[in-house]
Amino acid sequence: MNKIKPNLSLKKVSIIGIGLIGSSIALASKSKIKNIFVSLFDIDPIIRNQARDLNLGDEVTEEIGECVKGTDLVILAIPVGSMKNAIKTLIPHLNKDVIITDTGSTKVSVTKDLSNLLPKNCYYIGGHPLAGTEFSGPKSGFPSLFEDRYWLIIPDINPENKIKTLEKFCQCLGSMTERVNVSYHDRIVALTSHLPHLIAFTIVKTVSNLDDDIKRDVIKFSASGFRDFTRIASSDPVMWRDIFLNNQDSILEILDRFNQNLEIFKTCIKLKKGQELLEIFNETREVRKLIVEARQDIPEDNKAKIYFKYSRNNSFPDGQ
Amino acid sequence: MNKIKPNLSLKKVSIIGIGLIGSSIALASKSKIKNIFVSLFDIDPIIRNQARDLNLGDEVTEEIGECVKGTDLVILAIPVGSMKNAIKTLIPHLNKDVIITDTGSTKVSVTKDLSNLLPKNCYYIGGHPLAGTEFSGPKSGFPSLFEDRYWLIIPDINPENKIKTLEKFCQCLGSMTERVNVSYHDRIVALTSHLPHLIAFTIVKTVSNLDDDIKRDVIKFSASGFRDFTRIASSDPVMWRDIFLNNQDSILEILDRFNQNLEIFKTCIKLKKGQELLEIFNETREVRKLIVEARQDIPEDNKAKIYFKYSRNNSFPDGQ
Repeated sequence: MNKIKPNLSLKKVSIIGIGLIGSSIALASKSKIKNIFVSLFDIDPIIRNQARDLNLGDEVTEEIGECVKGTDLVILAIPVGSMKNAIKTLIPHLNKDVIITDTGSTKVSVTKDLSNLLPKNCYYIGGHPLAGTEFSGPKSGFPSLFEDRYWLIIPDINPENKIKTLEKFCQCLGSMTERVNVSYHDRIVALTSHLPHLIAFTIVKTVSNLDDDIKRDVIKFSASGFRDFTRIASSDPVMWRDIFLNNQDSILEILDRFNQNLEIFKTCIKLKKGQELLEIFNETREVRKLIVEARQDIPEDNKAKIYFKYSRNNSFPDGQ
Repeated sequence: MNKIKPNLSLKKVSIIGIGLIGSSIALASKSKIKNIFVSLFDIDPIIRNQARDLNLGDEVTEEIGECVKGTDLVILAIPVGSMKNAIKTLIPHLNKDVIITDTGSTKVSVTKDLSNLLPKNCYYIGGHPLAGTEFSGPKSGFPSLFEDRYWLIIPDINPENKIKTLEKFCQCLGSMTERVNVSYHDRIVALTSHLPHLIAFTIVKTVSNLDDDIKRDVIKFSASGFRDFTRIASSDPVMWRDIFLNNQDSILEILDRFNQNLEIFKTCIKLKKGQELLEIFNETREVRKLIVEARQDIPEDNKAKIYFKYSRNNSFPDGQ
């Protein structure tokens, strides 16, 4: 693939947190952008060593200050709950005019936390790549993760040239960028991501609580639907704890609507209201059609499988 | 691929209902079993014509009686709610010693209905292939659908040689057969399939009820979890109506457990109980590991995509 550098005024990018997202940004930057220097840091020394073994980026530093020294763009790819402390440690080492972004799944609380902490000549512009797999850690990253995926940008009150620089960087990695308002962001992702994950966790927990005999058979015969929920419910625990605690209001609001609809279903089943059920299923089928039309139905797992099969270590992170 | 015929005492198989399952059984039988005659019937004349155009099996008959004439095995691949009427129409045309099976997703009500109707020298042995995609109709069928999938057999009080004949047929199509008790079957599938589908329908309905603006954005940004639920929630409406109405007790029981767990989550989020959330997520991750170990995580969609790309019509049923 030809590397591109479309007037991108970034010489150094610093990635804090080397999980699925951080490692994928590093791999994508190096494979898609000319002459960019990628520095990485993770608080866990084992992860830092893994990142070195995997040749992610140009350097993996021992200190967070070293990682962000002279940088143009800091990307916080860490759980939402760790942002505040990370930024406190970073502040003394930051250049002026630096852009700080994150990849977290909630924005209201992070925006509030970081805006109060950052000096005036640093620009925090929230970001959220809508891409992921159920795997975590530096070994799960792959460079095509962001291709043809939306990357939401929360412009807030930042200067237009700074927002454009960040957008261009995300576009270089293969993403389509879209600007959204901070509270609208949290409401949208409560629907697209947080509620589905919450429900998947609940279904899997329901099975997990069963007696051993029936649990064994549910796992054995899981191909008929349950399997897909366990995949969703195996994502990184710390990340999801932080998401649920930081998007409390939107999640609880949408959960109430979900519960009302679940009660409707329960009544239909109890009272054997077949016609009502049919009408609901036809309605939900329509939503699926719209998603296929919007070309949102290309799972990342396929991309990951191709990458791991042909270029990295010949095995998918879960050993398949 | 070499066709096999391992002492299979079936000369003619009759498939009633030409949807995803019926058409896949026809394709699999013809491609995997030597010298078998496959006759098909569907109540819908449009579907019958499609099945003829697709060259499914050896004949598509205009009358149900013609389809089952002189047959050794009748397979009812129709919605659970239509079984009783179909069997009433069939009875006058059945050979003695014929095996009747079905592919429905619930068994308690069907077993009761059919056992009361069938004459003594016909053997109803319930069956349930744990395989499927979200697509329906004769065009969605493909011959590898049942490969490496479980096919549950409900032996009931039938003679051992009849049960063995049915099992061997399913194994010829590539499945692993397992015998289960009729009420245990309905409880297991309530967990593995019916609850996950019910929840997926509920989530998609919750989005479907939103105002147009936010609904449009949820669909646009659906890649982060919601997308997977719409796939599950786009399965055949009539089939699912019948399933929910015929497995009422098991579904309502498991729904109560689900609701209790959802309340636990709600409380954890409301009261910001981070440690409890972490513990639940670690528990659900363990279940995923067991499923990957049990090799249940190979989606049928991959098989279907290969089939439609290389052998049939070069396009997946939804046009992807």
